[in-house]
Amino acid sequence: MSLPRRLTAEALGTAFLLMTVIGSGIMGERLSQGNAAIALLANSIATGCALYILILVFGPVSGAHFNPAVTLGMALDKRIGWRDALAYIIVQVMAAFAGVAVAHLMFGEDLFTASVKIRTGGAQWLGEFVATFGLVTVIWGCVRQNITAVPAAVACYITAAYWFTSSTSFANPAVTLARAYSNSFAGIRPEDAPAFILAQLAGAAAALLAVRFWSPQ
Amino acid sequence: MSLPRRLTAEALGTAFLLMTVIGSGIMGERLSQGNAAIALLANSIATGCALYILILVFGPVSGAHFNPAVTLGMALDKRIGWRDALAYIIVQVMAAFAGVAVAHLMFGEDLFTASVKIRTGGAQWLGEFVATFGLVTVIWGCVRQNITAVPAAVACYITAAYWFTSSTSFANPAVTLARAYSNSFAGIRPEDAPAFILAQLAGAAAALLAVRFWSPQ
Amino acid sequence: MSLPRRLTAEALGTAFLLMTVIGSGIMGERLSQGNAAIALLANSIATGCALYILILVFGPVSGAHFNPAVTLGMALDKRIGWRDALAYIIVQVMAAFAGVAVAHLMFGEDLFTASVKIRTGGAQWLGEFVATFGLVTVIWGCVRQNITAVPAAVACYITAAYWFTSSTSFANPAVTLARAYSNSFAGIRPEDAPAFILAQLAGAAAALLAVRFWSPQ
Amino acid sequence: MSLPRRLTAEALGTAFLLMTVIGSGIMGERLSQGNAAIALLANSIATGCALYILILVFGPVSGAHFNPAVTLGMALDKRIGWRDALAYIIVQVMAAFAGVAVAHLMFGEDLFTASVKIRTGGAQWLGEFVATFGLVTVIWGCVRQNITAVPAAVACYITAAYWFTSSTSFANPAVTLARAYSNSFAGIRPEDAPAFILAQLAGAAAALLAVRFWSPQ
Repeated sequence: MSLPRRLTAEALGTAFLLMTVIGSGIMGERLSQGNAAIALLANSIATGCALYILILVFGPVSGAHFNPAVTLGMALDKRIGWRDALAYIIVQVMAAFAGVAVAHLMFGEDLFTASVKIRTGGAQWLGEFVATFGLVTVIWGCVRQNITAVPAAVACYITAAYWFTSSTSFANPAVTLARAYSNSFAGIRPEDAPAFILAQLAGAAAALLAVRFWSPQ
Repeated sequence: MSLPRRLTAEALGTAFLLMTVIGSGIMGERLSQGNAAIALLANSIATGCALYILILVFGPVSGAHFNPAVTLGMALDKRIGWRDALAYIIVQVMAAFAGVAVAHLMFGEDLFTASVKIRTGGAQWLGEFVATFGLVTVIWGCVRQNITAVPAAVACYITAAYWFTSSTSFANPAVTLARAYSNSFAGIRPEDAPAFILAQLAGAAAALLAVRFWSPQ
Repeated sequence: MSLPRRLTAEALGTAFLLMTVIGSGIMGERLSQGNAAIALLANSIATGCALYILILVFGPVSGAHFNPAVTLGMALDKRIGWRDALAYIIVQVMAAFAGVAVAHLMFGEDLFTASVKIRTGGAQWLGEFVATFGLVTVIWGCVRQNITAVPAAVACYITAAYWFTSSTSFANPAVTLARAYSNSFAGIRPEDAPAFILAQLAGAAAALLAVRFWSPQ
Repeated sequence: MSLPRRLTAEALGTAFLLMTVIGSGIMGERLSQGNAAIALLANSIATGCALYILILVFGPVSGAHFNPAVTLGMALDKRIGWRDALAYIIVQVMAAFAGVAVAHLMFGEDLFTASVKIRTGGAQWLGEFVATFGLVTVIWGCVRQNITAVPAAVACYITAAYWFTSSTSFANPAVTLARAYSNSFAGIRPEDAPAFILAQLAGAAAALLAVRFWSPQ
């Protein structure tokens, strides 16, 4: 598959992922009369369903990373060249912002607004470490054993991780950056984003080491 | 498969789809004590589950379009003849109204009542454009790569799209027309339907162009 | 497979199905602070999940009917002998009551109490007709085309049908009889049960005729 | 696969399972404004999703028991040696406590706190007997007929069993011990744990006998 096609797939997929995360968060918050558990239930189910179809459809084209932490891991594992990886990451970040903008337009909000939602502190950083550790473990486990299971596995993982981590599992640096400019249910203050991203990269690195130990081949 | 059999399958499937959309909307609204997020959660899960089984069962018979935007795309792609496509679309619209009528009868409502639910404005039109763009992208992506995945893919897509679009993702001209005559949770004012349908057709056309670019083959 | 083994499988499966329907209804009602939509959401998701695993596990043993309407259809279709069908139906009814009793014991209720929940009238009878028509259509559609899909198909169908029918889709004469003796969320007054069962049998018969028309072979 | 690798997989999987059970319980309780049905809905969906991916990923490595009752059954069935079984069980219990600790850290709670949640009495003991009977029946049914179905089957079973048993279906001695030291939504008083564990072992034993009777081979 040519690089432009793969990048188009990464762009469309990442933009749709962000549209789902932001859009379903806004819809959930608007309709749920302040009961955040119902909003998060909608948010987590919608995101899981979206990930299933996005990975199913775009996986055969680009690998369906949609996530710089995944792309970096694939590059370290020599499954993608470093030059392509860099292009992937740039496209993922740009598409994530585009997805946020489209979600905001669909809900009549400004294109971008810095979030004021505080997400900080060691507990949430540990949440992001664990969330990304788990995500990368799941992806590598499936890639090495049963690659057709990736769409359902990532979908189920993220639906669960929205609930079992205190940070609601961003687990993705491009997603984190873009969510910093959505002042909505799924937002995060721009100043809180860097620590989330560091925790995510640490979690991904730890997972790559762990996978080498216990996974067949 | 003979045309009458295929049309019967399109009719049964489209009628069941509408019964589910309208019926689960009424049930959700009646039981949820005004918390629209819970009603939409029920509505989106029920519709996703129904789409899964309808496409699974009727897919091998008629292709399980249930949607003029899909049928038009299939005709443009030379996967169905124009004469058959016209018959499909007529049957889809008639069956959609039949499904609404049966749902109303099951819940003790009049056969048809024009909806008074306002769904209009650029934000929602963009929602319908995006919703149908995504639906057609998902269907073509699966048809070209992995056709057995269509039932689960469309089910998950619509469950997510109910939440990530401001319009709750009608994404189907026949469904839109019929929902205009249900004054219930899932309704839309008749005067708002044409703009929704135009946005849907534009979204479907854009998806067909996009798919040609990035999809294998 | 010997008849006693098949009957044991029908008994265990039907009892677990009723335990799930009644038990999750009680749990949902106790915890949901009077919001019946949340209770029905739990009830429908739990029942769908239970059907998936019950049909998966017991399907290869007994066919996993758990439902006299299904067994009668199988007998009419010459997929099971009439003598075995009669044994199936007797076991299904007895096991359904056993399942209700176990559910009641698990929740500290009396073994059996006649329900006072009114479920009657043409709208709900139509609901049962439609629900059983759909269930039998889905089962026959899968049996003729793709039998491995039956567990997920029936699970998704029932989860949706809880919501799109005004009767919450009993769709099963044995289940209806047993639910008449549970004075809980999922109950039905004993005097309302016969009309439900008649509507179910009519729906099943209509589906068998319809399936012969449109289904391949 | 070498024993250390298998034990690492059991440890990671069991720890993630407990993190999900405890973490999603805390998140659900914090957000749901006292509506325990919404919290349990989140808890049961998150746990089901987590089990799906944990068994999918770790199944090919260690068998993905994560549960002493399952390991004991596998040893009785000569599918694992007694020495390995003992190592599995020790690791499961230790990892369960580790998972609780990580969940607490992620949500800013103390590492361990004895639960004050009363879960006792014959009704709930029957619940645990039934829950574990069902779990072991499902696992053995799948192992003997269709092993690739285990991840989805166990996930669906536990999601349903959270709702149809009065005890919310612990069904796992290691999980029970660890949940006794979480004073949160998913906790159980330490003094109530032994009776739960006895009921679980009795349910597992009854299931092993039942499976021998009705299961093919």
